[in-house]
Order: sequence, then C-alpha cells, then structure tokens
Amino acid sequence: MKIRVHVNLKPGVLDPQGRAVHHALEGLGFEGVDDVRVGRLIELDVADSTSDEALDDMCRKLLANMVIENYRIEKVA
Amino acid sequence: MKIRVHVNLKPGVLDPQGRAVHHALEGLGFEGVDDVRVGRLIELDVADSTSDEALDDMCRKLLANMVIENYRIEKVA
Repeated sequence: MKIRVHVNLKPGVLDPQGRAVHHALEGLGFEGVDDVRVGRLIELDVADSTSDEALDDMCRKLLANMVIENYRIEKVA
Repeated sequence: MKIRVHVNLKPGVLDPQGRAVHHALEGLGFEGVDDVRVGRLIELDVADSTSDEALDDMCRKLLANMVIENYRIEKVA
C-alpha cells in the first residue's frame, strides 16, 4: 500500500525556507508570487495490513513535529 | 491561486533521508514498512494570471533539481 504524508507548517509559524524561495523567485523575475511555504512530502510503502491508527502514530511520533506542523495522510493505492 | 508543487526524487536516486526515516520507524517498532522516500511540498500563492508556462519555469529553474528530481504541479484553488 502506497501512502503519501503531506507535512506543512501550521499557519502563523515563520517559514524562513519559504521566504528564501519567495525572494529567489522574485530575483529570477517571476511576478505575482504572494506567498511561498515549504513542507515535506513523505512517500511510504507499507504492508496492506497497516492500520490507520498505526499510520497516524507514525506521523505523530516521527514524521511531523506536532508543535509546529500539520500532516495529512493520503492513500495512493 | 493556490498551487502545490510536489517534488520527489527520481526512481533509482539514493535517498539517505528516506532511509534514516525508515530506520527510525523500525526502531520505534513499526512493522511492515517497505520503503520510505522523502520529498518536498511547496505551496505557492500566485496571481490568477500566472500561466502554466511560468509555473513550469519556476519548477525547472528553482524549485526542483531536474537532474535528480521530478515535480508535479497541482492547482488547489
């Protein structure tokens, strides 16, 4: 079973990496970019028997920092 | 217009970060994890007038390293 975990910073949390990318895009001449936030995309290949609770647990214990990040689990196939 | 750019390593490219996450998950006692790959998720807030070509250009010039990474552009709203 293929799982995608989308991890992004909670609203309000400063994102220096996103800011750097924003600046760089402007420096390259791209206009109309209002905001950039950078997160992580983790693709897991897990056994079909893996429960939703186990996936949730993985995210809370390791994949996301729950203090500053949100996560979303997407089942691909 | 909100855009999500999914950047992930091309197949065959070694992913030490994914490997570290894989090991850590096993160390935490999670079973049945076969593979882990870590990529980036970049959320852009751009003007509605931004063309698909401009978005593609941003990815090729800055957001993804085309030598080792693939990208996928998703329009959210």
